Amino acid sequence: MAVSLQDYHDIQLLVETYARLLDADRLEDWLMLFDEHCHYEIMSRENVAQNLPLSLMLCDNKDMLMDRVMSLREANIYNIHFDRHVLSFLHMEAAGNGQYEAGLSYALFQSNQEGETRLFSVGRYEMRLIRKDDAWRFTRVRVVVDTGAILTLLATPI
Amino acid sequence: MAVSLQDYHDIQLLVETYARLLDADRLEDWLMLFDEHCHYEIMSRENVAQNLPLSLMLCDNKDMLMDRVMSLREANIYNIHFDRHVLSFLHMEAAGNGQYEAGLSYALFQSNQEGETRLFSVGRYEMRLIRKDDAWRFTRVRVVVDTGAILTLLATPI
Amino acid sequence: MAVSLQDYHDIQLLVETYARLLDADRLEDWLMLFDEHCHYEIMSRENVAQNLPLSLMLCDNKDMLMDRVMSLREANIYNIHFDRHVLSFLHMEAAGNGQYEAGLSYALFQSNQEGETRLFSVGRYEMRLIRKDDAWRFTRVRVVVDTGAILTLLATPI
Repeated sequence: MAVSLQDYHDIQLLVETYARLLDADRLEDWLMLFDEHCHYEIMSRENVAQNLPLSLMLCDNKDMLMDRVMSLREANIYNIHFDRHVLSFLHMEAAGNGQYEAGLSYALFQSNQEGETRLFSVGRYEMRLIRKDDAWRFTRVRVVVDTGAILTLLATPI
Repeated sequence: MAVSLQDYHDIQLLVETYARLLDADRLEDWLMLFDEHCHYEIMSRENVAQNLPLSLMLCDNKDMLMDRVMSLREANIYNIHFDRHVLSFLHMEAAGNGQYEAGLSYALFQSNQEGETRLFSVGRYEMRLIRKDDAWRFTRVRVVVDTGAILTLLATPI
Repeated sequence: MAVSLQDYHDIQLLVETYARLLDADRLEDWLMLFDEHCHYEIMSRENVAQNLPLSLMLCDNKDMLMDRVMSLREANIYNIHFDRHVLSFLHMEAAGNGQYEAGLSYALFQSNQEGETRLFSVGRYEMRLIRKDDAWRFTRVRVVVDTGAILTLLATPI
């Protein structure tokens, strides 16, 4: 079933907001884009291909995701870099019950305080979206990373 | 003449599918996006600027393109990397007879099985599209690459 | 207030044109995308964060921007590289009086004449747009670069 122009546009804007808030280090606002019942996960492409359940980051409810953000704020050493997401075209499919599945590829660059930039990660988002109270929210975000060398201990969301 | 929102959207989705299928190594499905009469070519920016006909890859009909995909499957050594396309904004112009010309810039990253990612190629797609049986198909895809060092012998499509 | 699909689309095409003309080294045509009263500026993320007025490039009217383009043409040594912009999703907000503010992240790659490509700069555009004579034009473009090491003397626009 074809996705309407308006739904495609609205969800594109939600995904844009997702990346913009992360890049601006507005993690608490980024949290608000998730539904109360949500699942956030970072997995390597290799583990997905081999059907291994191992995650680089896993928060299977919103409280866990909030805790993650809080601990990043307290650790306070994570923000020695600045993120910059560059997003590729959005794919969308109706998933029943008014929900959508969406996917898109990304490149994530990180710059340090000396203004040196490196390619940090490329991969793909797999998202599920629900509409509540007139706004689209994420119920599920799975980031499948092609790039393996991610420090998991203090990893920031992608 | 202005391009309609709907046509722009539909062709954006076709281009999205093009990149998604390549990145998922679904080359046989990717082939289906091309019209029976099609032309696929990879050229360096330098050769285009100097009007040299030399191609890094050239398939001027669909059978040739299919042969290329088959030989990649048989060689079987090509899939030691994983592609990741990141696509920039789409440009479109009506080309008469209900056809369109489209263009867009891309960055293509490759990751190896150790999860190391490198920038493989940047450049620009120049595409021509036709609508048949209610679906848009490529009649022509020319990839003009800025990045020269591409192994031509076993090159995968970009 | 929600941005109409049509305005979003039209401004996306303007931004696409902006990048396409720069990448094709059509600087004189690129100039035409700016309103008579315009401001173009490149700043580092660090200076923006610290509220320092220091710019890497600053043209606060269209004549200055034209002079810049002319001097690049005369210097003639700048075009030893080829630009390639890859643009991320567009953010737009109404700014009153029929104007819009727009923002988007970008990655800019440069290739030399040997076909070697490097990541040159990532960052974010902050734009302001006005509609005159049935066309959208930039009244303000500020490029906030994450990547610091930019040669300012003969810098080309980003």
